[in-house]
Amino acid sequence: MNENTTIHNGLEGIVAAETSLSMVDGAAGELVIAGFPVAELAMNATFEETAYLLWYGALPDEDELSAFRADLARRRELPPVAYEILRAAANEKADSMDALRMAAGTISLRGDSQGTDKSVCATSDKSVGATSASDTRSSGAIRREQCGTDTPVCAADDDAARNLLAAFPTIVAAYWRFLNDRHPIAPRDDLGHAANFLYMLSEVTPSDERVRGLETYLNTVVDHGLNASTFTARVIASTNSDLVSAITGAIGALKGPLHGGAPGPALDTVFAIGAVERAEDVLRKKIESGEKLMGFGHRVYKVRDPRADVLAAAAERMFTRGGDMALYDLARAVESVALRLLEEYKPGRNLQTNVEFYTALLLHGLDLEIPLFTPTFAISRVAGWIAHCFEQRRANRIIRPQSVYRGARDLHWRPIVQRKPGATNLVST
Amino acid sequence: MNENTTIHNGLEGIVAAETSLSMVDGAAGELVIAGFPVAELAMNATFEETAYLLWYGALPDEDELSAFRADLARRRELPPVAYEILRAAANEKADSMDALRMAAGTISLRGDSQGTDKSVCATSDKSVGATSASDTRSSGAIRREQCGTDTPVCAADDDAARNLLAAFPTIVAAYWRFLNDRHPIAPRDDLGHAANFLYMLSEVTPSDERVRGLETYLNTVVDHGLNASTFTARVIASTNSDLVSAITGAIGALKGPLHGGAPGPALDTVFAIGAVERAEDVLRKKIESGEKLMGFGHRVYKVRDPRADVLAAAAERMFTRGGDMALYDLARAVESVALRLLEEYKPGRNLQTNVEFYTALLLHGLDLEIPLFTPTFAISRVAGWIAHCFEQRRANRIIRPQSVYRGARDLHWRPIVQRKPGATNLVST
Repeated sequence: MNENTTIHNGLEGIVAAETSLSMVDGAAGELVIAGFPVAELAMNATFEETAYLLWYGALPDEDELSAFRADLARRRELPPVAYEILRAAANEKADSMDALRMAAGTISLRGDSQGTDKSVCATSDKSVGATSASDTRSSGAIRREQCGTDTPVCAADDDAARNLLAAFPTIVAAYWRFLNDRHPIAPRDDLGHAANFLYMLSEVTPSDERVRGLETYLNTVVDHGLNASTFTARVIASTNSDLVSAITGAIGALKGPLHGGAPGPALDTVFAIGAVERAEDVLRKKIESGEKLMGFGHRVYKVRDPRADVLAAAAERMFTRGGDMALYDLARAVESVALRLLEEYKPGRNLQTNVEFYTALLLHGLDLEIPLFTPTFAISRVAGWIAHCFEQRRANRIIRPQSVYRGARDLHWRPIVQRKPGATNLVST
Repeated sequence: MNENTTIHNGLEGIVAAETSLSMVDGAAGELVIAGFPVAELAMNATFEETAYLLWYGALPDEDELSAFRADLARRRELPPVAYEILRAAANEKADSMDALRMAAGTISLRGDSQGTDKSVCATSDKSVGATSASDTRSSGAIRREQCGTDTPVCAADDDAARNLLAAFPTIVAAYWRFLNDRHPIAPRDDLGHAANFLYMLSEVTPSDERVRGLETYLNTVVDHGLNASTFTARVIASTNSDLVSAITGAIGALKGPLHGGAPGPALDTVFAIGAVERAEDVLRKKIESGEKLMGFGHRVYKVRDPRADVLAAAAERMFTRGGDMALYDLARAVESVALRLLEEYKPGRNLQTNVEFYTALLLHGLDLEIPLFTPTFAISRVAGWIAHCFEQRRANRIIRPQSVYRGARDLHWRPIVQRKPGATNLVST
């Protein structure tokens, strides 16, 4: 390390992993999920099929799928202490992503016979010279078992993965109800993953159209390259820590406002406009005052985000078969005016409708309120995080970059009575 | 991204950050902590002074230090739900790092008037084209406040940082006592950070020598470049998520057996040898059978780990003034034989005593049992994690590397009844 060391702030452009989980081609506007064009997978699969595909590398056959669905359904209940946490968090009106992080972090405390093997799954480390004592240390009361590299997914990881995937909807729904001074609704094991989530929110068995709408959304956003939360999960897993630790870290990263990909106020403009005939006027004023139009443009996709098309089709189908068609028509009209005006004011920028716009429309059509949007995104993305942890395990190497030192050197200790105020060693970059 | 893309597995050699917190020079055997040679800082500072130095860039004067100590002492109690979690975890005999992660993750639920501002501290993002809706979205019930980039540490971060630092010893001690079927001991605000930790474990007010021994250890391991847990904290903080989320992720990474730097069974050999005269015989057999000698060698330091010297001196001082001198003498004798035999069997490898060896000796002298070693390491390192989060905030850019896709493409959907078994899309690297 010397003064001329290249510093990769944000690790932009650095390739940190090979993956078979998703391929994001921003220039072509293409997204492949485990081999499938996103539209093909998202429109057809149940969410359980998508998770199975990502975790085990192939779509399940009938027996495999029915066993997987039944096993997940059995794991939906939370440890009692998770409900205590959610109640305490609701008393403080905590952020719903914080509540999800806290409750998901206790998922290993199930205390029942559903196979929670708490041993840590570990593969051999390929990094150089792991000669220190730490690679065999035991930091707690539990003995750690090594898993072989020949198994695609070891038993401890698989068990934790299923507990996590199954529990996310229960946590999100229970917290939402606590926040609204209602009791949680027990999960129903005769419903699929997506249907049961909607049921636990409202106590109403959802229609097939609404379930299909939610499944399409969950499939669409399940994985998207090495985004910051996925990368967090891989870094933690790379130390051979356990899967719950990795996913807890990922939830914390997804909460961050810079993470992107999770929907927010993308529909605010649509609601503010209220009627088609006001669209042009309102949007012109916004653009002319320099305001960003929420729901348009993406950091990676320079053409239309392929996920937007999938979600637009899903929204149309869902709204047509029993939703608020007036809202759908308004949203489409606003989109069309917005795209025309963006091309007029920012020619050549090619700003397109992004995934947040149609996510917001779809989730709004499912009667989910905005604070539920990011947790619902997490209900999907956790399947991707877990798949990346599995992938990291299969060819593990601890992820540990370097830093370069820019502070003072050779400072000398000064007793407290001799200290001068104002001296500082803070780096200024 | 094409077939020839360079893949930086483990990000080895990639510089991901500039820092003024620590400089690790493995070739020279040098470690600088915030401008001070590690020995100079570790031997002299209280742990509160070290944390203050790392967080605010300079050693505190008398008024600053006394205010900082008093403020931390006030924040030692845990939210009630954290005790519930620790009790539930103890019932399951959970790993002590898992228990620390779960309880620390709820530290924002203090529900009292001690200034827990739950807003998220956020600085401007320098990454390109943050045009999506997500940068202003609100994912929960709490409104987020932006903090200016001109403040070295914003109020919300500072508040969370102090709550976390203050709570770690309380969590670790309470969990240890639950695991051993005893009640937690309430913290005492008339004791310093290190002294109070020892008191909460044993209900005995520790001697000055023991407190000095623990402070020296905590100062020595407080920061060490971009190790995996520190990097995890920076990745999470880089999304502008909150500090508790970042630290919760870091705890999960530190738990991993490949993380390194945390002490484990380094003294097992010493205990197994039992008497000086058996050392040569036992060690020869171990080396000849190909066994690694725990406590010797380090991935980064190719000469003597500078931390080993500091901890050796601290151990000598502590044991001399009221410890088990027989154990100390045995450990030193075993070390001397081990170094001689390692040079004989592996000439030129220059394997030296590492930090784990003296950590184990020192912590053993403080009557800490092995499952407490990694959590005690975390009690120190959390100050470094927090300092790195502060540093990340000051010049933030979201940390988001790339992946390269190696899976199948253009798969087509097949209804479940038409699926063939055995097809897989798992990457094989």
